[in-house]
Amino acid sequence: MTADNRASTSGTEPAGYGPDSGLLSPVRAGTPAEAVTTDSAWLQAMLDAEAALARAQAKVGSVPAEAAAVISRAARAERLDVRALALVARETANPVVGLVRELTRLVAAESPEAAEFVHHGSTSQDVFDTGAMLVADRTLRLIRADLERAAEALADLAARHRDTAMAGRTLALHAVPTTFGLKAAGWRRLLLDARDRVAAVLDGGLPVSLGGAAGTLAGYLEFAPPGEGGSHGEYGEYGDNGDYGDYADRLLDAYAAETGLARPPLPWHALRTPIADLAGALAFVTGALGKIAVDVQSLTRTEVGEVCEPAVEGRGASSAMPHKRNPVLATLIRSAALQVPLLAAGVTQCLVCEDERSAGVWHAEWQLLRECLRLAGGAAHTAVELAEGLVVRPERMRENLMLTGSQVVSERVSAVLAPRIGKAEAKELLTRASAEADRTGGSLAEILGALPKVKRHLTDAQIVRLLDPEGYTGAAPALVDQELARAGRLPRARAE
Amino acid sequence: MTADNRASTSGTEPAGYGPDSGLLSPVRAGTPAEAVTTDSAWLQAMLDAEAALARAQAKVGSVPAEAAAVISRAARAERLDVRALALVARETANPVVGLVRELTRLVAAESPEAAEFVHHGSTSQDVFDTGAMLVADRTLRLIRADLERAAEALADLAARHRDTAMAGRTLALHAVPTTFGLKAAGWRRLLLDARDRVAAVLDGGLPVSLGGAAGTLAGYLEFAPPGEGGSHGEYGEYGDNGDYGDYADRLLDAYAAETGLARPPLPWHALRTPIADLAGALAFVTGALGKIAVDVQSLTRTEVGEVCEPAVEGRGASSAMPHKRNPVLATLIRSAALQVPLLAAGVTQCLVCEDERSAGVWHAEWQLLRECLRLAGGAAHTAVELAEGLVVRPERMRENLMLTGSQVVSERVSAVLAPRIGKAEAKELLTRASAEADRTGGSLAEILGALPKVKRHLTDAQIVRLLDPEGYTGAAPALVDQELARAGRLPRARAE
Amino acid sequence: MTADNRASTSGTEPAGYGPDSGLLSPVRAGTPAEAVTTDSAWLQAMLDAEAALARAQAKVGSVPAEAAAVISRAARAERLDVRALALVARETANPVVGLVRELTRLVAAESPEAAEFVHHGSTSQDVFDTGAMLVADRTLRLIRADLERAAEALADLAARHRDTAMAGRTLALHAVPTTFGLKAAGWRRLLLDARDRVAAVLDGGLPVSLGGAAGTLAGYLEFAPPGEGGSHGEYGEYGDNGDYGDYADRLLDAYAAETGLARPPLPWHALRTPIADLAGALAFVTGALGKIAVDVQSLTRTEVGEVCEPAVEGRGASSAMPHKRNPVLATLIRSAALQVPLLAAGVTQCLVCEDERSAGVWHAEWQLLRECLRLAGGAAHTAVELAEGLVVRPERMRENLMLTGSQVVSERVSAVLAPRIGKAEAKELLTRASAEADRTGGSLAEILGALPKVKRHLTDAQIVRLLDPEGYTGAAPALVDQELARAGRLPRARAE
Amino acid sequence: MTADNRASTSGTEPAGYGPDSGLLSPVRAGTPAEAVTTDSAWLQAMLDAEAALARAQAKVGSVPAEAAAVISRAARAERLDVRALALVARETANPVVGLVRELTRLVAAESPEAAEFVHHGSTSQDVFDTGAMLVADRTLRLIRADLERAAEALADLAARHRDTAMAGRTLALHAVPTTFGLKAAGWRRLLLDARDRVAAVLDGGLPVSLGGAAGTLAGYLEFAPPGEGGSHGEYGEYGDNGDYGDYADRLLDAYAAETGLARPPLPWHALRTPIADLAGALAFVTGALGKIAVDVQSLTRTEVGEVCEPAVEGRGASSAMPHKRNPVLATLIRSAALQVPLLAAGVTQCLVCEDERSAGVWHAEWQLLRECLRLAGGAAHTAVELAEGLVVRPERMRENLMLTGSQVVSERVSAVLAPRIGKAEAKELLTRASAEADRTGGSLAEILGALPKVKRHLTDAQIVRLLDPEGYTGAAPALVDQELARAGRLPRARAE
Repeated sequence: MTADNRASTSGTEPAGYGPDSGLLSPVRAGTPAEAVTTDSAWLQAMLDAEAALARAQAKVGSVPAEAAAVISRAARAERLDVRALALVARETANPVVGLVRELTRLVAAESPEAAEFVHHGSTSQDVFDTGAMLVADRTLRLIRADLERAAEALADLAARHRDTAMAGRTLALHAVPTTFGLKAAGWRRLLLDARDRVAAVLDGGLPVSLGGAAGTLAGYLEFAPPGEGGSHGEYGEYGDNGDYGDYADRLLDAYAAETGLARPPLPWHALRTPIADLAGALAFVTGALGKIAVDVQSLTRTEVGEVCEPAVEGRGASSAMPHKRNPVLATLIRSAALQVPLLAAGVTQCLVCEDERSAGVWHAEWQLLRECLRLAGGAAHTAVELAEGLVVRPERMRENLMLTGSQVVSERVSAVLAPRIGKAEAKELLTRASAEADRTGGSLAEILGALPKVKRHLTDAQIVRLLDPEGYTGAAPALVDQELARAGRLPRARAE
Repeated sequence: MTADNRASTSGTEPAGYGPDSGLLSPVRAGTPAEAVTTDSAWLQAMLDAEAALARAQAKVGSVPAEAAAVISRAARAERLDVRALALVARETANPVVGLVRELTRLVAAESPEAAEFVHHGSTSQDVFDTGAMLVADRTLRLIRADLERAAEALADLAARHRDTAMAGRTLALHAVPTTFGLKAAGWRRLLLDARDRVAAVLDGGLPVSLGGAAGTLAGYLEFAPPGEGGSHGEYGEYGDNGDYGDYADRLLDAYAAETGLARPPLPWHALRTPIADLAGALAFVTGALGKIAVDVQSLTRTEVGEVCEPAVEGRGASSAMPHKRNPVLATLIRSAALQVPLLAAGVTQCLVCEDERSAGVWHAEWQLLRECLRLAGGAAHTAVELAEGLVVRPERMRENLMLTGSQVVSERVSAVLAPRIGKAEAKELLTRASAEADRTGGSLAEILGALPKVKRHLTDAQIVRLLDPEGYTGAAPALVDQELARAGRLPRARAE
Repeated sequence: MTADNRASTSGTEPAGYGPDSGLLSPVRAGTPAEAVTTDSAWLQAMLDAEAALARAQAKVGSVPAEAAAVISRAARAERLDVRALALVARETANPVVGLVRELTRLVAAESPEAAEFVHHGSTSQDVFDTGAMLVADRTLRLIRADLERAAEALADLAARHRDTAMAGRTLALHAVPTTFGLKAAGWRRLLLDARDRVAAVLDGGLPVSLGGAAGTLAGYLEFAPPGEGGSHGEYGEYGDNGDYGDYADRLLDAYAAETGLARPPLPWHALRTPIADLAGALAFVTGALGKIAVDVQSLTRTEVGEVCEPAVEGRGASSAMPHKRNPVLATLIRSAALQVPLLAAGVTQCLVCEDERSAGVWHAEWQLLRECLRLAGGAAHTAVELAEGLVVRPERMRENLMLTGSQVVSERVSAVLAPRIGKAEAKELLTRASAEADRTGGSLAEILGALPKVKRHLTDAQIVRLLDPEGYTGAAPALVDQELARAGRLPRARAE
Repeated sequence: MTADNRASTSGTEPAGYGPDSGLLSPVRAGTPAEAVTTDSAWLQAMLDAEAALARAQAKVGSVPAEAAAVISRAARAERLDVRALALVARETANPVVGLVRELTRLVAAESPEAAEFVHHGSTSQDVFDTGAMLVADRTLRLIRADLERAAEALADLAARHRDTAMAGRTLALHAVPTTFGLKAAGWRRLLLDARDRVAAVLDGGLPVSLGGAAGTLAGYLEFAPPGEGGSHGEYGEYGDNGDYGDYADRLLDAYAAETGLARPPLPWHALRTPIADLAGALAFVTGALGKIAVDVQSLTRTEVGEVCEPAVEGRGASSAMPHKRNPVLATLIRSAALQVPLLAAGVTQCLVCEDERSAGVWHAEWQLLRECLRLAGGAAHTAVELAEGLVVRPERMRENLMLTGSQVVSERVSAVLAPRIGKAEAKELLTRASAEADRTGGSLAEILGALPKVKRHLTDAQIVRLLDPEGYTGAAPALVDQELARAGRLPRARAE
């Protein structure tokens, strides 16, 4: 199953086995998040876990340092045949049993002694879950950085369009004016909310898994050095629950240090908080990105035309229609936003797992979690390009805002008249005037100016000024200022 | 539509309109969480929002204090006909338009002047969402308290059964020993994790909604007092985006103070972070509770019999079988755990909402969120009774642990032999010995004691002690101690 | 718990218990589907199941006819306290145990002898599931009828607008022309597809549940009359698996006949095909309706304005904005379409239920299924009004179609030129000409007419005709004709 | 991007791009369903669609036969670089634009004339969706065959264990006896139900997609031969909605014939019935399989031990515990059953797609659908092995059945006494006797025999016979007979 005998193995594979190209998932094809979540990357992360375990055990005296070094050198994904591992995973319902066998073989080729210490006292789930946390950690850092980059670009848009009036739309219709700056500030706020949720998971510390066969660490303790209660000690001790002193603590600390992950409060084979937290954060990320995507699409519509995606040679082309420039970035992002919350729900359901390790629930997490990671990562990466290149058309915003002939500010006139003629009558009056404007095509200003009830309280000039949509953006500009001031402009994010 | 003319309205209702009895949802029937999430409670919360808004506007000078007082007095759910409101909600796709009409009528009956100030400058979503946050806040506090009570009971169980050996089970089979204390400590950890996620939402502060028609606050600003740019000022100012100074800030602060909720960073009509956070926390809560439920069921099985639910007169009876005492509490909890993560995913998907207010996405949140709240609340309440009354049977745990004739500790013997005869050979030897024990019914100790390879390294007495499952609980007791020490015993929770 | 002693019971109820008004679910408030799915309706359906069982047993000789008559008379939901039943359901995790107790009491009040025959040999699940099927059957018939009515209205629209040209839109942009008739025909096709899936469930026959405690019918057989192996016979027979002849068959047939439901192939306590089928059909129904809703919203947008919802006094009003007429019907429908597929997935997951009756999985179905039924029913009912009243504006369709200055038919020109100058060059030429038209504001006809490559093949008149969007609707009209002819115009549907 | 210049392309790829090995999804690794759903298989299916389109157009006269032949020869997945296609798919949000470019290049290398006819009048979605239907069709046939094979094995089990008594279990506890034959017959029934739902989709005919840019077929009609209204005809015709006669019909028929798929009623770019139907059927399949899996696990538990999975060398091994033989097949199946209903719900939600082609909703279907196909296919394949090899242990079933000391038949004794002493008193008597048996460890027979009320009606011998669990299996054996007779034994399935 190692690289050396791949040929013979692949001879028995089904013909259709092929690369994970992203053909059906372009939102993540070629993105950094995809690269760190491939089967190969996952395999490497599990091997990293095995190597880190050996080194940690070397630190605390239960594995010879040389053995740990040999194991670390051998633990390279490119030396294993990932497909062969997948195939044998069917025999044990997880890929670690096969991985341990192959890793042992590779280590034994260099040092039969070192091979005795591969997967020492360990269990499949410790290796798989620690590997999963390494993959998740790497992906979340990419996502955080991309969310921050996109948020920064949106902050620029918000600042630049602080006062750019446009129609606020509710239930598909023009409601009252707003500014594009406020819209962009809201998008940014959502991405920062998403960033905060990702950061909370990262800062809380994704944990190593170290529990042994049923979460008691018994397998590890058995190999504690003499004087610490392990079975290497005097035979007479066998059979007692030994006094292992702080061996388990030191091993956990060492493992956490070697992997760069955190120490969990308890072995978590069947306490899936870390997995559920990941799912929750990733569902939020794609939901937030999806909101931006549908807004961009709504504003891109041919009849609306208030924004368009960055023009890039070849981007957005249609196989049939020469004139189209499709909003493909928003489309890709939305495709992820439709999937991830559901996949994440599947992961969250896996909190409900029986016993010390479930027969199937644990196994259901894997692919769902990976999909959440790479779709969210792909969508965040795509959003950077969208946010940084979005083309905004203030003139189309103004034209559209005028489309309803000032009806978009009817709320305001109603508010001004209310204290004079009563709220109910004011609203009724505006409703009738709007309907008349619709019917006759006349301007709302003229219709209102002709009404005695209105003339008694407002001059024609006042009416005209009241009916200017650009004069009724409320606190939008101030909200933009506050929002941008509050969170501060972000320092450029780095994928650590 | 007020209580006075109910009779006439109900005459036109479909015959089947009836109470929300919980008949199909016993997990929450009669629980405190149900009581604070009924249609009536929701209606009252929206009325609370209207009253708080009026008082807040009185504080900042845009509504007369007397009007706010009248509005507050009138805003009582029992004075409205909740069914009639539901029916007219179809006309506007939300229940607030009808609510405002009825509230205005009630206020006008006492003071026509005060009626002018009902829903002053406001919009349906501000009232609905603020009401939703009030309901959520009340429910989350109940849930937090119940999670803490249940966790405390589990801490007692963990302490009491720190050393109670039982079979650790993986993939449905006995794996290696553990202790019931560690299992209970893990359950408690999950509930504290859930409590922390609920607390994070509460501590972050569920926000008021105050954005006006499209999130610019324009409607509210229009009524700012003279000198602050509102339309009450000089006519000549109309039509400018006024300089409202800090009016909006003061209004927001006052509204937050009157409701007991927090100030949001931005109006959130279409930025649904608070809703998504609620969904995430509630999905986690039920997932965590569900884990306990399936474990209790697994241990309750007739053949296992290691725990049983508290015996209560009439509880767990079957309509057909006199001898059964069903694990009904775990069943109820599990029924919620199967539903909430999906419902919560639906809520999370609602992050993807177009424009300044979506035509349908906002509306899809309501019932889903309410179900999440009351199912999670019902399940948490049920879990208190389960945790506080769970009957544990250490003797059955011991009997079961012995069922496999020491095979449950074969891992250990393998570990002891590995340094002497090599890991692979040790595992192979144990696999064969286990199979022989299965086939012949012989004891593993005898079979091993007869093998020269084993005899060379272990005495019969050593073998017997090694094969004692109760001597192989690893770090389980120490993990219990750590876990209980780390988080400290909880002070009894209070529903604030 | 009967109506007579309600007062005392209600004294101990939580204050917040209230009606199921639909306040948070206006899509179904007041609709016929709501009326047949209330808690009271469900309770009545379960009582119908008990009564039908007694009558069926009377038919086959295991219950006296008089007893069955008394039971049937007593089995009226209004004589029970549904809330009290919900509360005691917590004791047994289902409402049937309490229901049987109360029904027995009511029957005993009339005839102590008859009371011996209530729930004779039965089990909770038989009664609950048969009741659920009765509710589902009633709701599905309503849905089918509403789908057919809506489809008929859409057929009218399709016929009327067979040739009404409008922009076909893909990825948010104008693509090529289509006709509104084809769009309406597509909507109708989806509703007929939905109707067919509902009809398949109805025609397949929703089954009675008759399995007894663990699906063996043993409890029923025990009461088979003498001579058929039941325990009423000679004592000496006890303890044998009797020869019941065709008693079970006759009982099943009688039960099916009394309820109007079908005979299942096997007892289905843990074989949830009927439930999963319902979920699948209802998810499809709301998905299909949701497609129409988002299309209506897309076409309703202020800038598009090609359709609007039927104008009804008070409908679509905003609490803030006098001028708006919101697309509330589409909004309500969409709110259901966002919820039901998820709820239905929860039901489908319940196929995975352990043993002869699951501890929690069965229980999770109930509320999910009811929500699917009443949301789908509400949405279908709402769709009738939308489809019958939809206002179509052909002139706005034409105006919008012209918005891109003939770019919407660039595909066609490209196709005409391809055989002359090569496909690649033709597409390239059109892409450049479209870009130039965008940039200069010039007409595509002039730009093309000035190109030598085009002039060589097409006259100015040909170009002008080629560029007429209304001349490029392809097979749209023919497809409308085919579709309307194929399925035939529907006879007006009846809720049977 | 063709195979020839792969090297240069791959030089710019992210390092982590690797094979789709199934490492995280062992349930489908190496199964036939995986082989027909890889990216390469999907690419081939899309190429098959392009080739079939060219041949169909040749049949109806709009493409030269030689061109169609060249295109068919060139359309080989191995000649394209699937990864490069995935990467360029980001530019257009779908992989077909790149595929057409590459296919055109390959065809042009052989015949520049033929290259003019690649993707003739077509649109991306026609090719993608037709390809998807080809993949789905191939996978469904595999699934149907595997369901039938598994069902046949279960029929054998049902027949063999028609009378094998075992405990029927409800809410985790022994209820009343049943037989293993009835359980197996129920499993089989579910699989046949699943088979029927798959067959309905196959028999209904998965449709080709042929709509052109916006579903009007305009692009295809443009190339209709002279005399049929296409643009190849006289110039003077341009600009009219031509009279294409039955060209579209003949083209559709030819395309359906060339692909082996069905003709849809209407172009279905935005009418996603075929996709939703697939999702529904696949969710059912995995749900049905999942039921069997959890039952097998429940019966496999160490304490229960009534079944075990087929023993295969190396199968079910643990990385830590030598003695375990894990139920890995059931575990794999359950892992799929937890995922697919959710993924399928995501697909069903995609019914709600706006316009003539959605910007994102269509795109969200792809990966979800593929996962449903390959997980369901993998699970069905795994189930064949499980069903054919399941080891049943009647002796353990009998032992377990006796565990409760006849309480498992207390329902029966209650039923026998009811007509003599009244139902309520009989149930009460049995409840007390069961409790006493529990408390004292005495046998239920003795306790009952000592009660005067019982002695009056039953002899000791009668009591003993009544209390024999194996005598109380009700209609279980008869139900097995009926079920096996009804459906007939299946002819061995063939993957057509």
